[in-house]
Amino acid sequence: MSIGVGVIGAGVVGGGVVRTLLSNRDVIKDKSGIDITLVHVADAKPELFKDFDLAGVTTSTDAKTLIADPKVDIVCELIGGIKPAKSFILDALNAGKNVVTANKMLLAHHGPELCAAAIKNGVELRYEAAVAGGIPIIKALREGLAANRIEFVCGILNGTCNYILSRMTYDNHDFNDALKIAQRLGFAETPPDLDIEGHDTAHKCQIVASLCYSTEVHLGDIHVEGVTKVTHADVAYALDMGYLIKLLAIVRAVNGEIEVRVHPTLVPEDHLLASVRNEFNAVYVKGDVSDATLYYGRGAGRMPTASAVVSDIIDIARRGDSPAPAPFNYGTKRTVRDMGHVHGKYYLRMTTRDTPGVLGRICTILGDHGVSIGGVSQKEKHEEDRVHVILMTEMTVESAVRKAVAEIDGLGVVHEPTHLLRVLTD
Amino acid sequence: MSIGVGVIGAGVVGGGVVRTLLSNRDVIKDKSGIDITLVHVADAKPELFKDFDLAGVTTSTDAKTLIADPKVDIVCELIGGIKPAKSFILDALNAGKNVVTANKMLLAHHGPELCAAAIKNGVELRYEAAVAGGIPIIKALREGLAANRIEFVCGILNGTCNYILSRMTYDNHDFNDALKIAQRLGFAETPPDLDIEGHDTAHKCQIVASLCYSTEVHLGDIHVEGVTKVTHADVAYALDMGYLIKLLAIVRAVNGEIEVRVHPTLVPEDHLLASVRNEFNAVYVKGDVSDATLYYGRGAGRMPTASAVVSDIIDIARRGDSPAPAPFNYGTKRTVRDMGHVHGKYYLRMTTRDTPGVLGRICTILGDHGVSIGGVSQKEKHEEDRVHVILMTEMTVESAVRKAVAEIDGLGVVHEPTHLLRVLTD
Repeated sequence: MSIGVGVIGAGVVGGGVVRTLLSNRDVIKDKSGIDITLVHVADAKPELFKDFDLAGVTTSTDAKTLIADPKVDIVCELIGGIKPAKSFILDALNAGKNVVTANKMLLAHHGPELCAAAIKNGVELRYEAAVAGGIPIIKALREGLAANRIEFVCGILNGTCNYILSRMTYDNHDFNDALKIAQRLGFAETPPDLDIEGHDTAHKCQIVASLCYSTEVHLGDIHVEGVTKVTHADVAYALDMGYLIKLLAIVRAVNGEIEVRVHPTLVPEDHLLASVRNEFNAVYVKGDVSDATLYYGRGAGRMPTASAVVSDIIDIARRGDSPAPAPFNYGTKRTVRDMGHVHGKYYLRMTTRDTPGVLGRICTILGDHGVSIGGVSQKEKHEEDRVHVILMTEMTVESAVRKAVAEIDGLGVVHEPTHLLRVLTD
Repeated sequence: MSIGVGVIGAGVVGGGVVRTLLSNRDVIKDKSGIDITLVHVADAKPELFKDFDLAGVTTSTDAKTLIADPKVDIVCELIGGIKPAKSFILDALNAGKNVVTANKMLLAHHGPELCAAAIKNGVELRYEAAVAGGIPIIKALREGLAANRIEFVCGILNGTCNYILSRMTYDNHDFNDALKIAQRLGFAETPPDLDIEGHDTAHKCQIVASLCYSTEVHLGDIHVEGVTKVTHADVAYALDMGYLIKLLAIVRAVNGEIEVRVHPTLVPEDHLLASVRNEFNAVYVKGDVSDATLYYGRGAGRMPTASAVVSDIIDIARRGDSPAPAPFNYGTKRTVRDMGHVHGKYYLRMTTRDTPGVLGRICTILGDHGVSIGGVSQKEKHEEDRVHVILMTEMTVESAVRKAVAEIDGLGVVHEPTHLLRVLTD
């Protein structure tokens, strides 16, 4: 059996897919019994084609030609972004072609529309590469753990943020220096906002939540905080207490609702996610039957992403004439829980005047709001008349902590707004 | 669509599968669109049936009745061992039924025969639960990483051994005490030999090697060492040098041959496998496209194993009328490399007389065999006139180390045979 593949985009990821299809055609045939053939590559920049040995492969400078090519059974959309990627995918699906994409932004914004088009045309839309790059996490959630009710997922899904936080943790850099190093080494883009503000992680988190809970999740319902407000002091104080700060995507089922949130989180140092350093990604998944599992690897980069795209191509080829599974099943209605109703432990860093009685007033306010204190430490003088007070709460509801913090920040003795970080509790 | 499942064996694993099929039927249907129905349970001990609500489910005390039941589309063999499991599986395959098994011992001994029967009958034989329990590692290797040439796999595949080594590492127990604790807590069987001598790990290692390299691997070609010779002193010395001792299954492609081996291994403390504690399993896989990935979870136990068995059932149901993929592809011929030709770093613990000149003689012999020394330390007096000398080699070929060790052990100054352990090098 032979299957023809067309690749739209010959840049970083597309080029990796082209390279993999050419170099590993033999091993893919050995394993799958199917001859998967690159038949067409399209890119607006034809100079990119020179990097590859494309003998026998059609090249074109527009995607429409590729989509219309009858030799193309599977279309890979690897240009990213919303426009024109969305129309390419819809055109391909409506032409009855299976589609593979790595486009998390597009899926997070337009998943239901794309999904409907795939179902209507009886073809597949696959997206293993959209979440955690080379880690086969979509497959694990859809198939490997299909017997489970998923109770909890938390993941390090953005290599840029994890790289920056690693430099802050292991090399004592502050945020801005760590960001510059990441940009110099190619682990962060310029501008870096999509990554460091948490939006890229939110896109992936939305895909995971939709998949795990068979429900439509609106991006606007996801609480998103990036890593820009994390200071080196926070990283150091957390480390003192046995925690590493990681940007996590968290999805959890709670009493019929789901939590879907992205924020910097204190991870206990003996948790496996704490060992995930530098640009690596990992996803921790707890199912009701499997219990805890974890998946680790490279979440980005030309070749790891290509590994995921090509695995999707192989899966489509293997499926043969069986009915195409739906990309998402939106059959269940689940409400995203308001952050005020989330329960957890909190890290609070307050920058206060070095005056007697300040700590007492802070603790009293927390107590008034029903927030129990698990630990407290006053750090050595930070600047003239400014000290850092670090407070760890016991399990509490977020609305109570937020009210207490607002009251504390209203006291005359606090120099800057309290920095609140959440602690991973499983 | 509806699919009927029959479960042979209502013990630990079989009971977990029965429980999962009953309790999670709704969520499985939500995710897969298929109604997977438990229709028949067979066990020689009918008293086991009382643990479950089997209203509407046929029960019988012999497997033949179950296999012959026309309502059974998929047969799960969950009794373990060679006899009678093998004949049950062959009967089911020959009756044109798909089979799911967790039986690593049977697959490791009779994989080619079972595989041939599945292919002949055009049905599937799936075995996700046979390796690493609840971790979907077979799926990752077969499908998630299908685009890759697998360069290297190493795994902690036996929870009993990892539990024992964890107690030796974190609680300072010697081997025998750690084994007793493991037995008391149900993490080790009585007798424990299949686990602690490394055979269970070898069975799983054989399956992984056959799968990754599309080749037949004979159990007898696998070098197998268990954990019984690891002492608390070894664990402590390794820890001093920044290593944890883990029982690893290692599979690696080297110049057209493959390494397939099971032995206690010094794992650098910053390697993710070093963080895998207690009864947990993990598998580290390096592909030529994906680069490093890791999969972690519970490798045994009723429910995690059931999670894997039921995921196989769902996959078979989802496949519909597509051709059944072969359980293994034995099309490639690969030789298992002789251990003497393996390259690596070595830990050598020598128990010598506390006499001047001993260390010099040892180092000279190693040098004569071309073995470079990466580090050496002489430990405080162990017993009267006995000291431990710990040597770490640089990269070398195993035959050279073995010859040197034989010569050293022949010196009059060594009290007991040198203990050789291998170091993880990636």
